[in-house]
Amino acid sequence: MSTAINSAWHLASRPTDLPSAANFAWRETTLPALADGQVRVRTIWLSIDPTNRIWMNDADSYLPKLELGEVMRGIGIGRVEESRDASLQAGDIVQGMLGWQHYSVSPAKALSKLPPIPLPLSAHFGLLGHIGLTAYFGLTDVAQARAGETLVVSAAAGAVGSLAVQIGKNLGMRVVAIAGGAEKCRWLSDELGADAVIDYKVEDVAAGLARTCPDGIDVDFENVGGRTLDAVLGNLKLGARIALCGLISQYNASAPEPGPANLAQLLMQRGRMQGFIVLDYLDRAPEAAEKLIAWHLAGRMHYRLDVSDGLESAPAALSKLFSGANTGKVLVRVSAE
Amino acid sequence: MSTAINSAWHLASRPTDLPSAANFAWRETTLPALADGQVRVRTIWLSIDPTNRIWMNDADSYLPKLELGEVMRGIGIGRVEESRDASLQAGDIVQGMLGWQHYSVSPAKALSKLPPIPLPLSAHFGLLGHIGLTAYFGLTDVAQARAGETLVVSAAAGAVGSLAVQIGKNLGMRVVAIAGGAEKCRWLSDELGADAVIDYKVEDVAAGLARTCPDGIDVDFENVGGRTLDAVLGNLKLGARIALCGLISQYNASAPEPGPANLAQLLMQRGRMQGFIVLDYLDRAPEAAEKLIAWHLAGRMHYRLDVSDGLESAPAALSKLFSGANTGKVLVRVSAE
Repeated sequence: MSTAINSAWHLASRPTDLPSAANFAWRETTLPALADGQVRVRTIWLSIDPTNRIWMNDADSYLPKLELGEVMRGIGIGRVEESRDASLQAGDIVQGMLGWQHYSVSPAKALSKLPPIPLPLSAHFGLLGHIGLTAYFGLTDVAQARAGETLVVSAAAGAVGSLAVQIGKNLGMRVVAIAGGAEKCRWLSDELGADAVIDYKVEDVAAGLARTCPDGIDVDFENVGGRTLDAVLGNLKLGARIALCGLISQYNASAPEPGPANLAQLLMQRGRMQGFIVLDYLDRAPEAAEKLIAWHLAGRMHYRLDVSDGLESAPAALSKLFSGANTGKVLVRVSAE
Repeated sequence: MSTAINSAWHLASRPTDLPSAANFAWRETTLPALADGQVRVRTIWLSIDPTNRIWMNDADSYLPKLELGEVMRGIGIGRVEESRDASLQAGDIVQGMLGWQHYSVSPAKALSKLPPIPLPLSAHFGLLGHIGLTAYFGLTDVAQARAGETLVVSAAAGAVGSLAVQIGKNLGMRVVAIAGGAEKCRWLSDELGADAVIDYKVEDVAAGLARTCPDGIDVDFENVGGRTLDAVLGNLKLGARIALCGLISQYNASAPEPGPANLAQLLMQRGRMQGFIVLDYLDRAPEAAEKLIAWHLAGRMHYRLDVSDGLESAPAALSKLFSGANTGKVLVRVSAE
């Protein structure tokens, strides 16, 4: 297999606004033979996330920028097919930056061997992994969320948002979910237990927050930014905390977007806004996984997958994230488990 | 004295941008006789602060809004002339919301008796009091400033900013000061010990921060907001903290000002921005005063007063704050000590 054919999506150009298939080039290459310390992995699941869009920019972010021509960066789950490192062996299931490709060759130490779980492999992306860690530690650690407080979650029908809503409920919070469209809002209130929902397609978010949070907001799990964040800032309670998880409203802007005009409210209400990145919490993954699995098995934590079949579908799956067409976690099934 | 004549500046109209003398009306009234629990105080010093502008708005802030026709709110130091409360007696020196007036009648419990200090009475406003507390706890508590870190202070030649610069130096930080004009910048570097200065009148602040903070900013003591805050956000180091003390660039805006476009950097750098108000630290005042007095007596903490004589000058003194004409703490001497 050391001369196996690989196929991959390479970054061909950088989007100025929405990412599209035109930004990627499909190429077939020959995989190199393994060096000592390396493993070859067959990709099974590819996670499609808003942050993928950040990686396409011509700038370093919390990770170094991707050069044009490189295989598109992506978090994947795969099976080790060949190993030249003692820490992994053929058949092991691993997670890491496998990229948008069928096969990858990486140093074994760049990958994490996944522990067995009483759930399908895809739960590592839908419930656990970077999604679950982000929602769990964003609320418990960054925002110091407490029972009885009012939590607002934006992009609440998204992968991270829908977990944040349910974690908030499991922590004993009153949860207000912001999402677009009647179907998503129904899912959030009827199945995920949100106490109130704001459909931003039919109601002004600032008005919706004034309606649903008459006593103000204690915690905001912020995925959107822009006007949504501004509306949140205008409704803060004294000592409020904003866990700044994402700013999806701004990722596709070709020019800098104005920030929140209501920033003075952070001052008046002695509020705290804190950015965080899941990479800082990887060493605490077992703590989150234990809670999330227990809640799920008790029927108190649901997740929904939005699966596209075949590596070819990856660019379209990414576009879907920014049009609001997805409900739950967007995944690409690259090969069979 | 129970029928003494009082004179005062009353709030006559609300400014739409810069405050001016036209917003105030000078009135003479007769002071009421004291009720049980009340004291009459003669104002000696009146503190003029950027936050006075916030109090003139038609909106509650961290304090209830002031109604039109009321005596302008202001923090003052005065001498008790008559007391009908056991906790204070004639001759005591007190601080509190005395207002822009020669005499005030207040409940004794709304005032703080000032402890004796080895400095002139005006040091309670120039070095200690709300100014010193703001600078001291903004750095040590809100921003968790540490020796060896790089600190940026905006409006650094102002009352709070100039103390923040020196507290940073006394804590062992590298301090970059932003101010407008050669004289202020010279004072900051030659007398207050700033390691680098940015004169925003001759250098773009973002370029100045890139020049003076090549490794990024650990702590920002933010007094200005707007474009200054945006420039800071663009130069954050990983794990940076922004102590949001004031947003003087925005207080006079009649329409909402756009917030910082660089907010995404707070996310990328896992930064924390936290608003605070000195009122939350009043019970820890002795802790700050002890440090500030000791540093001052050791020659490591200077303060500069910008004194206007006579209550009549209060509106002009307030305007001065927003034109950048002051260096150091703006005070009005209402009567002799």
